[in-house]
Amino acid sequence: MKNSKGRLSKRRAIVLLSGGLDSAVTLYLAKYDGFTVNCLIFDYGQRHKKEVEAAKKIARQAGAAYRIIKLRLPWKGSSLLDGKIKIPRPDKADGIPSTYVPGRNIIFLSYAVSFAEAAKAGAVYIGAHTQDYPGYPDCRPQFYRAFSKTVSCGTKAGVEKKKIEIKTPLINKTKAEIIKTGVKLKVPFELTWSCYKGGRFPCAKCESCYFRSKGFFEAGLPDPILLR
Amino acid sequence: MKNSKGRLSKRRAIVLLSGGLDSAVTLYLAKYDGFTVNCLIFDYGQRHKKEVEAAKKIARQAGAAYRIIKLRLPWKGSSLLDGKIKIPRPDKADGIPSTYVPGRNIIFLSYAVSFAEAAKAGAVYIGAHTQDYPGYPDCRPQFYRAFSKTVSCGTKAGVEKKKIEIKTPLINKTKAEIIKTGVKLKVPFELTWSCYKGGRFPCAKCESCYFRSKGFFEAGLPDPILLR
Repeated sequence: MKNSKGRLSKRRAIVLLSGGLDSAVTLYLAKYDGFTVNCLIFDYGQRHKKEVEAAKKIARQAGAAYRIIKLRLPWKGSSLLDGKIKIPRPDKADGIPSTYVPGRNIIFLSYAVSFAEAAKAGAVYIGAHTQDYPGYPDCRPQFYRAFSKTVSCGTKAGVEKKKIEIKTPLINKTKAEIIKTGVKLKVPFELTWSCYKGGRFPCAKCESCYFRSKGFFEAGLPDPILLR
Repeated sequence: MKNSKGRLSKRRAIVLLSGGLDSAVTLYLAKYDGFTVNCLIFDYGQRHKKEVEAAKKIARQAGAAYRIIKLRLPWKGSSLLDGKIKIPRPDKADGIPSTYVPGRNIIFLSYAVSFAEAAKAGAVYIGAHTQDYPGYPDCRPQFYRAFSKTVSCGTKAGVEKKKIEIKTPLINKTKAEIIKTGVKLKVPFELTWSCYKGGRFPCAKCESCYFRSKGFFEAGLPDPILLR
């Protein structure tokens, strides 16, 4: 929302929406915080389109505007982009899983910051957290602190002291806590899609399915996607 | 260059190549530093295609591989992207010029870092400097320091202590110094294109033409693009 003086309005926020459970809760939290939300959805060559379709449905359900950015990284290096690399089963071992996409969150956040500047938004929301994937470096708080500094140094908005806040409201929450928060905010979990594979039903085997079902179990709630 | 242990080789670098004079000198500096170079060229909806064509010619001349990334920011906010906003004449006034593209260098660097991780490169070179455009926040040293921190916190390479250095060899140089460096390195200045407009000849009026001609004048050298 622009005000008459062209100042960055604190009332508009950009939300990175993936179609998964975490970003859906993040969208509803941004709305709860009083922001008018513009969602940014990336079609970045994921193995399937279900995520993008889910994101569109969630944005519509929340009454939020959205834009889809189609981007293709011409290099591989992740099992999420490269059909030849096997998607890992849930693995307790340390280390960064093969589903890590090089620089993904840096790229997504950069677009969001550009959009925020152009739309005079005061915040960017991202549903990253450390619980499921301690191995993903771009889900850790220190990354978001460093990125926030980059934004305040490297944007017109930052130089003009019109802060674009990078908000990570889920950063230290467990999946069960995220789900309970979402239930309170009436997040349409039945529209979200977490499975790394694009079948008719979730595969129930990949890491993402594992963390989702564990989260609903620990929250003591049924997963509505399984009740459809 | 990958080595047998899959370590990040210090001998491969990604260079952001725009087709202008600064990034051409940067490419030759990276080669001079002993790197095998992969150039990254962005076709981001500039008003004309001459820049991208120039970048391709420069990469070929330097014997460097290149990749072109086509991206479209669906929002405007810059006279470089929006035909309705007038490109400014050289202006001594303070402030950020209308040619500033929101978040541009953050986006470009993010792609370069992703590419560097995937290609196991040890450095990203960008020809930014503060002299021509003190108004561009994403050309200042503090931005690059903050971005370097972001990369070391937010990438697999950084976590595994395989540093991806963000190199800005021109950061404090004047245009005349950049040109003199380029002459020593045999940079094909005749292939570079600086003008914001896409005419057959440079317009000689826009900011970018102004800084280029001032640079050649101060270096005491003719601009070979005018001798073609």
